Amino acid sequence: MNYTIGIDLGGTNVVAGLVDEEYRLLDKAAVKTQAQLGFDYITDNMAKLTATLLERAGLAKEQVSSIGIGSPGAMDRASGTLIFAGNLDWHNVPLGPAVEKKTGIRTLIANDADCAALGEFVAGAAAEDESMALITIGTGVGSGIVTGGHLFSPAGSCAPELGHVSLVAGGEQCTCGRRGCAEAYLSFSALIRDANRAADADPQSSLARLREKGEALNGKNIFDCAKQGDPAAKALIDRFIGLMGEFFGDVENAFGVRSIVIGGGISKEGDWFCRRVYEAMVPYVFAGERYAPKLRMAQLGNDAGVIGAAALERYL
Amino acid sequence: MNYTIGIDLGGTNVVAGLVDEEYRLLDKAAVKTQAQLGFDYITDNMAKLTATLLERAGLAKEQVSSIGIGSPGAMDRASGTLIFAGNLDWHNVPLGPAVEKKTGIRTLIANDADCAALGEFVAGAAAEDESMALITIGTGVGSGIVTGGHLFSPAGSCAPELGHVSLVAGGEQCTCGRRGCAEAYLSFSALIRDANRAADADPQSSLARLREKGEALNGKNIFDCAKQGDPAAKALIDRFIGLMGEFFGDVENAFGVRSIVIGGGISKEGDWFCRRVYEAMVPYVFAGERYAPKLRMAQLGNDAGVIGAAALERYL
Repeated sequence: MNYTIGIDLGGTNVVAGLVDEEYRLLDKAAVKTQAQLGFDYITDNMAKLTATLLERAGLAKEQVSSIGIGSPGAMDRASGTLIFAGNLDWHNVPLGPAVEKKTGIRTLIANDADCAALGEFVAGAAAEDESMALITIGTGVGSGIVTGGHLFSPAGSCAPELGHVSLVAGGEQCTCGRRGCAEAYLSFSALIRDANRAADADPQSSLARLREKGEALNGKNIFDCAKQGDPAAKALIDRFIGLMGEFFGDVENAFGVRSIVIGGGISKEGDWFCRRVYEAMVPYVFAGERYAPKLRMAQLGNDAGVIGAAALERYL
Repeated sequence: MNYTIGIDLGGTNVVAGLVDEEYRLLDKAAVKTQAQLGFDYITDNMAKLTATLLERAGLAKEQVSSIGIGSPGAMDRASGTLIFAGNLDWHNVPLGPAVEKKTGIRTLIANDADCAALGEFVAGAAAEDESMALITIGTGVGSGIVTGGHLFSPAGSCAPELGHVSLVAGGEQCTCGRRGCAEAYLSFSALIRDANRAADADPQSSLARLREKGEALNGKNIFDCAKQGDPAAKALIDRFIGLMGEFFGDVENAFGVRSIVIGGGISKEGDWFCRRVYEAMVPYVFAGERYAPKLRMAQLGNDAGVIGAAALERYL
């Protein structure tokens, strides 16, 4: 039996997992990231987590064919260099080679959103599909794509960065500096912005009443208001779902994937949300419903990134 | 020396070309398509064109490793079946196998827009680049992508169909039935629609005067009015270029290609147009100017489809 290790380098925690050939996550270990302690500290910790996992499983390092690291930021995969990762304040650091040297195990790196997509592809919501896009709806809108038997992650670019593709050119301000990106309409931040506007416009709405009680609007209470029948919240969610359907139609027309998996905070909403978004998407699929991708909620939660990182050696 | 044959199946003509290993187009032969005469007639002609090319070059069929056919419509490449091609009124016809049987030469099929992109990639404007998108601006907006050493053409879809991705969701009516597609803003049809509106709004504009003289507005005379300094036409072209830059930024953010090649009628405009669109695009490239793709006009004209079809065996 051959094993691989996946490491998810987050802003808060570094999580490592031991994965077998069938992409089962056998064990996990984690430490605080502590970005301020620097590159050597963090890569030392990655080596220690690896040693811990091997020891607990009774494995020799020769039984592990590779370590995969999912990191935020932009990277040069060929050299294993992390070009920049804003929240770690790292620039041009040799992440792959450093961990490879400290562990004696071949080490590959990739973007964390790409790893999450690969995790859902090999072991989660898209495990039955030939190709997939993971669209993560949270504070922002993230994306990762697996197609043609590979992670779609072209060298010398940050693509696929589908949160920053026009949905309404010239429209709402996006965090990236442009206007009208998908993220400026489909993130929780966008939903909360629109809910606050709706509350301003309709002081009788449940949204406005929540605010009067001192509750800040958030994804959960906005959805709750809509489910309880508040007309302003319902209109907001209807529009949110409609635009998401349109965006997913765009993803299909561009990438022709067999499934789209919805990740991030919104995946808690479950089947009703998938069904509504699917109905909204179908009219926007250029080739018609027979080519419409399946739509599913992500299944693996935070483990997706670890499992996907562990799968990198077979999908780069 | 090994040769391949590329066939471009158009609504008006069937053009076949003999191509060498360096993607030089050595000879071409063509017949009228005459779609009304049916599938056998057209595939017989493809075999005859192949025989003509071999005879004129003094080649035996064993010296030709494959025939590639670029066809409009949707296809199943694995079986060589053309699923539908509206302007030929063909449904589920065995295009590849029929030509293979009639010629005794292995035959591959692909979408004609994909073949044009591949032609510019192997022998035209993107011959120096690792990856590219061809965006064709004509009556509609077409697209083809080469990345990771392959034509990006996922099975079971019409993707990439970038003309039918949102630019302004809910905006102008598109021919596909949706609103706000890139094609509804960036095609010549869209430009002419907008020029007619501008002429309606400003009877003093050169655009309005052209119409008064009985000239229908078209791509050429709209661009000419702008170049001659007519304010209404200039404003129109400025907006057209701005939206094209935004769209090309989207293409980059989604696909991370090293170059974007502009094909179709607009490619006659040349370098000034490329420069203006490049300047308009850069602010929309998520990863910043260092990741901005090169922008070039297509070089091969109608030969791109023939040369790309001849290259299929190496890029599927």
